[in-house]
Amino acid sequence: MPGNSFGSFFRVTTWGESHGPAIGAVIDGCPPRLPLDESVIQEALDRRRPGKGGITESPRKEPDKVRILSGVFEGMTTGTPICLLIENKDARSRSYDAIKDVFRPGHGDYTYLKRYGIRDYRGGGRASGRETAARVAAGAVAQVLLDTCGIEVLSYTIEFGGIVARQVDLDAVRLNRLFCPDQDAAKTMEERAREARASGDSIGGIVETMATGVPAGLGDPVFDKLDAELAKALMSIGAVKGAEIGAGFRAARLLGSQDNDPITPEGFLTNNAGGNPGRHL
Amino acid sequence: MPGNSFGSFFRVTTWGESHGPAIGAVIDGCPPRLPLDESVIQEALDRRRPGKGGITESPRKEPDKVRILSGVFEGMTTGTPICLLIENKDARSRSYDAIKDVFRPGHGDYTYLKRYGIRDYRGGGRASGRETAARVAAGAVAQVLLDTCGIEVLSYTIEFGGIVARQVDLDAVRLNRLFCPDQDAAKTMEERAREARASGDSIGGIVETMATGVPAGLGDPVFDKLDAELAKALMSIGAVKGAEIGAGFRAARLLGSQDNDPITPEGFLTNNAGGNPGRHL
Amino acid sequence: MPGNSFGSFFRVTTWGESHGPAIGAVIDGCPPRLPLDESVIQEALDRRRPGKGGITESPRKEPDKVRILSGVFEGMTTGTPICLLIENKDARSRSYDAIKDVFRPGHGDYTYLKRYGIRDYRGGGRASGRETAARVAAGAVAQVLLDTCGIEVLSYTIEFGGIVARQVDLDAVRLNRLFCPDQDAAKTMEERAREARASGDSIGGIVETMATGVPAGLGDPVFDKLDAELAKALMSIGAVKGAEIGAGFRAARLLGSQDNDPITPEGFLTNNAGGNPGRHL
Amino acid sequence: MPGNSFGSFFRVTTWGESHGPAIGAVIDGCPPRLPLDESVIQEALDRRRPGKGGITESPRKEPDKVRILSGVFEGMTTGTPICLLIENKDARSRSYDAIKDVFRPGHGDYTYLKRYGIRDYRGGGRASGRETAARVAAGAVAQVLLDTCGIEVLSYTIEFGGIVARQVDLDAVRLNRLFCPDQDAAKTMEERAREARASGDSIGGIVETMATGVPAGLGDPVFDKLDAELAKALMSIGAVKGAEIGAGFRAARLLGSQDNDPITPEGFLTNNAGGNPGRHL
Repeated sequence: MPGNSFGSFFRVTTWGESHGPAIGAVIDGCPPRLPLDESVIQEALDRRRPGKGGITESPRKEPDKVRILSGVFEGMTTGTPICLLIENKDARSRSYDAIKDVFRPGHGDYTYLKRYGIRDYRGGGRASGRETAARVAAGAVAQVLLDTCGIEVLSYTIEFGGIVARQVDLDAVRLNRLFCPDQDAAKTMEERAREARASGDSIGGIVETMATGVPAGLGDPVFDKLDAELAKALMSIGAVKGAEIGAGFRAARLLGSQDNDPITPEGFLTNNAGGNPGRHL
Repeated sequence: MPGNSFGSFFRVTTWGESHGPAIGAVIDGCPPRLPLDESVIQEALDRRRPGKGGITESPRKEPDKVRILSGVFEGMTTGTPICLLIENKDARSRSYDAIKDVFRPGHGDYTYLKRYGIRDYRGGGRASGRETAARVAAGAVAQVLLDTCGIEVLSYTIEFGGIVARQVDLDAVRLNRLFCPDQDAAKTMEERAREARASGDSIGGIVETMATGVPAGLGDPVFDKLDAELAKALMSIGAVKGAEIGAGFRAARLLGSQDNDPITPEGFLTNNAGGNPGRHL
Repeated sequence: MPGNSFGSFFRVTTWGESHGPAIGAVIDGCPPRLPLDESVIQEALDRRRPGKGGITESPRKEPDKVRILSGVFEGMTTGTPICLLIENKDARSRSYDAIKDVFRPGHGDYTYLKRYGIRDYRGGGRASGRETAARVAAGAVAQVLLDTCGIEVLSYTIEFGGIVARQVDLDAVRLNRLFCPDQDAAKTMEERAREARASGDSIGGIVETMATGVPAGLGDPVFDKLDAELAKALMSIGAVKGAEIGAGFRAARLLGSQDNDPITPEGFLTNNAGGNPGRHL
Repeated sequence: MPGNSFGSFFRVTTWGESHGPAIGAVIDGCPPRLPLDESVIQEALDRRRPGKGGITESPRKEPDKVRILSGVFEGMTTGTPICLLIENKDARSRSYDAIKDVFRPGHGDYTYLKRYGIRDYRGGGRASGRETAARVAAGAVAQVLLDTCGIEVLSYTIEFGGIVARQVDLDAVRLNRLFCPDQDAAKTMEERAREARASGDSIGGIVETMATGVPAGLGDPVFDKLDAELAKALMSIGAVKGAEIGAGFRAARLLGSQDNDPITPEGFLTNNAGGNPGRHL
C-alpha cells in the first residue's frame, strides 16, 4: 500500500523530498466553512523551523513559506481538498555528493533502497525529517477544526538528554526552545544540547502530549481504538521508538487493584488506562 | 468520506478548483524505477486541451503546463508520491460575477452547495471539467506503468450528436479532433458540432474504450470486479450517465444461448460478457 | 485487494461458497439502537429465494434460514459487527462432478482459476449467484437503517426477454413473480420465461431502481460520486453488463438544451442528469 | 469508521460478543493454495484458552472449537474469504445480572456506552477479552502464510508482576504456562500469579515479540511504517498501554553516537532502531 496518507475523514497525504522542488500535503475531507488562511499554518511552521538558538542549527536555511493552492475560497474552507505547498529554496544537492554511496546509520536510506531499489540520497530524500514540515502544516489545519470542537492538543518535552522536567507548567512551554514545561529543566537541557552539538553528537528525549476537551467515546473499537491510532501516528514519526498512554509501561508493575482507575460520581480518579479526565501524570 | 482519491495501489488524489491558484494530482503508490519526465504528461495534457478547431472553443486560454514536484529523481520514479502541479494562468474570476447567484443546469454547483453549504461559484469551482486535467496528467503516468506490462488502453468516439462511427480504424483516431475511428463520420460529427455551437447548444456522444494485453484474472472478485471498478471510474466523470461492458444493455435482449461467449481451444469466440479477447463489438 | 467488502461506514463483507458449509455476511458500522431481528432479514431472503413458480426452478432446495450471530442485543443493534449466517443445507457436491473439468460459459469459473490458480468447481464456488443471498441479507439490514431516514429504495423489472413494462404501477411489483410494475407485461414475461426454460435457455432483462426521500447533496464528490458508487455496486452483481442513471445512454443523442434539467422555483422539471426529484422516466 | 478490521491485503475482521451465539473472524485476502484445516487453528486456540493451571482460571468453560465455514476447498485455501466460527457454549448471561448497572474499572464498558448509547453488559460484550480468540484464530492462518515465506513470529513474557526474565531461552517458552523464556523466572512468576489470585487481584507484565526471516524493506514508508503498524496492532489489544521497538524508551537516554546502529560489511551491529538483524535485546 502507498503509505503516505493518514486518517479516514480528515485524510492527510504528504509528498515531497528534502531536495526536490517542493514538499507539501493534500488534506482531503476537511469540513467546509472553517476560516483558514496561510497565516495560521505559517505560525506553526515557524515554530517548527530548525536553526534557532544553536540547538538544532543546520547549514540549510529554508524560509518554509506555505501557500494554499486549493480548497479555500474567500477565506473559508469549501470541503474540497486543500493542497499546501512549501517550496524548497535552499536545496543544495552538491553538499550530498560525498555521501552518495554510504548510508547514514539510524536513517531510512537503507530501507528505502531495499524497498524501492532506488533512492534520492540528497538529504535523505523522502525519509528526511523535512517531511514533518508537511505534517505540521496539515496539523495546523487540523487544529483549526479541533478549535471548533473545543479540543486542544498540546505537546511538550518532559525528558531530554536524561534531564527530566520536574513540573508541568504549560505557560512555560513556549518560553524556551525545547518546549519544556519546566523553565529550570529547560536551561539544563539547552546546555546539554549545546555540549552534544559541540562534540558532534545528538540527544534523545521524551515528549508528552495532552489533549483536553475530548468527548468520551471518541474513536472506534477493537482494531481502530483511539490509543492504537495515536500509537501508530506517533511511531510513524522518524526516530520515535516507543509510545505509551496512561500509566504506560509503568502499568506492567502495578497490581490490578493499583492500576484500575476508580470511577466515582465525580469522574475517574486516575488516568492509568489513558483517556480519563484525571491527572495527567 | 473525502472522495477525491481513486485506486488502492496506484492511488490518485486530485485537487484544485477551476479558478484557484492551481490544480493537480498526487499519485501515491507508483512503482519505482519507471522513466518519467514532464514531457510524456505534457503530451497527454496538450491532447486534452480545449479550444482547438472551433469544437470546444472557450474564451479561457490555459497553457496547462505541468510540473513534477516530487517522486522523481534523475528521470526515474522513486516509489514516493508524485505531485503534479498545473497552474491556473487565465482564471478571470470577474467573468463569473454574473452567475454568482444562479445555478447552471446540469452542473454540480447545486449539489456542492447542498453538500457543503458553500461553493466556489467561479467556473464551477471543484465541479469544473477542468478537474479532468489532473486525471489526464495522472493517467499519463499510469500509461507509463501499463507500458511496462504491455497493456494498452485506447478510447475513441463511436457516436456523437447521433452520428455513429461505421468502422473502427484505430489509425484514424488521432487524425481528427473528435478522436473518431471513422474519418468520414468524423467530418459529419465536426459539422454537427459547429452547428450546435453556432446555435449556442452542445452535443452528447458515446466513447468506447479498448484495453489490450490485459492478463486474464486481473482484478478482484465480488464487489471489486474489474468491470465494477471501471464503471465507477467512468461514471465519476462529469456528464457521464451510463457505462456498459461487453454486449452491455444489448445483452438484456439476448437469450442465454446467444449471449454466452463460447469457449474454444482457440479462446473465447465473442466478448458479450466483456473482458474476453474476442472481437470488440 | 481482497474485494469482498462494500461501503465505508456501513461496510458489508460477504463470504461463503455455493457448496461450502454456509454463506453469510458481516456488517461493520451499522449504527446502534436500530430494532433488528431475524424476521425482517428472513422476509427479504424468502422474496429472493429461487424456485418459485417455474421461472427460476432449480433442483436445489435451500431453506435459506438466516441467523444473527452478533451485533444485536435484546432486539437492538449495538454498533458492533453483525454476522449473518445462512447454512447450506442442500449442497450436493456430487451433481457437479461431471463439470469438474469444464468451464461454463458466461460464468466466473474461468476467471477465478486464472486469478487464484484453484477453484471450487461445485456450483460456481464463490462465483455462484448464491453469494447474492448474503447481499440480500445485508441489504435488509441496510433498509432498516434507511427507514429511519425516510429513504425508500425500490427495484422492479422494466424489461425482460424483450418485453417492456408499459407502466410503472408500484403496487403491482409484488403481485407477480418477476417484480414487474405492469401486470399485463408480467404475464407475457412469465410465458416467455417458461418457453425459454422449456427449450433449456435463459432470458435477460433490465431492472430499474428508484430511491425516494434521498436528501440533495448526499454522497461525495469527484471519484466517489453517488452515481459512480451505484454503478460500481450494480456492475458487481454477476451478469450485469450495464448501468445508467437519469437519461442514461439516451442522453448521448440529446442536445444540451434538451438534456439540461430545468431548475424552477418548484424544483427540477426533469431527471435527465439523475438524482433530481423529477419524473422517474 | 467501523473499526473491526485490520490489514489491507490480508484483512481480518473480527465479530462477536462474549455472550452472543458465537464469535469469529473473516479473513479476506488470504492467498490461495495454502494448506489449511481446522487443526492448525485449533492448536493455537488451545494454547490461548484460559483456565489452565490456576493462573487464569475462570468459572466459564469454553471448548473454543473452531469451524472453517468458507474459503477452503479440499484442504487448500482458494483466495476467497475465510470465515472462522467459534460457538459460545458456556455463556451464562445470568451471572452478569448483578453488574448490569455498574461499570468495571479498566474495562471498555463505559466507553462503549458513551460511543453507542447501548451496551451488551454480559461479560463485557464486544469489549470482552474473548474477542482475542478470533484474533488468535486469524493469526494462526497468518502464520501458515508466513511459514511459506520463512518468517517466524514468536512472543514471550519477559516481565510479569515485577519479575524479569534473566535469559531468553526460546525452547523454554512453551514449557511453562506464562510463555516465559526463563524457566526459573517462570516459577516465581507463577507463584506471584497465584498470590495475586488468592487476594483477588491481578498482575501486569511485558511481552516481547521477535520476528525472524523478515526481508529488509518490508512495509511502507511515512505513515504506514512497519513499526507504526505494529504499534497500532499491539495497542489495539485490550489492556496494552505501551509499545516500543528496538531500544524503545531507553533510546531517549542515549546519545546519537550510542544509539546509532553501526553498519558493517557483516550487517548491523545493534538493533536500537528496531528491525535490524542484530541481537534482540
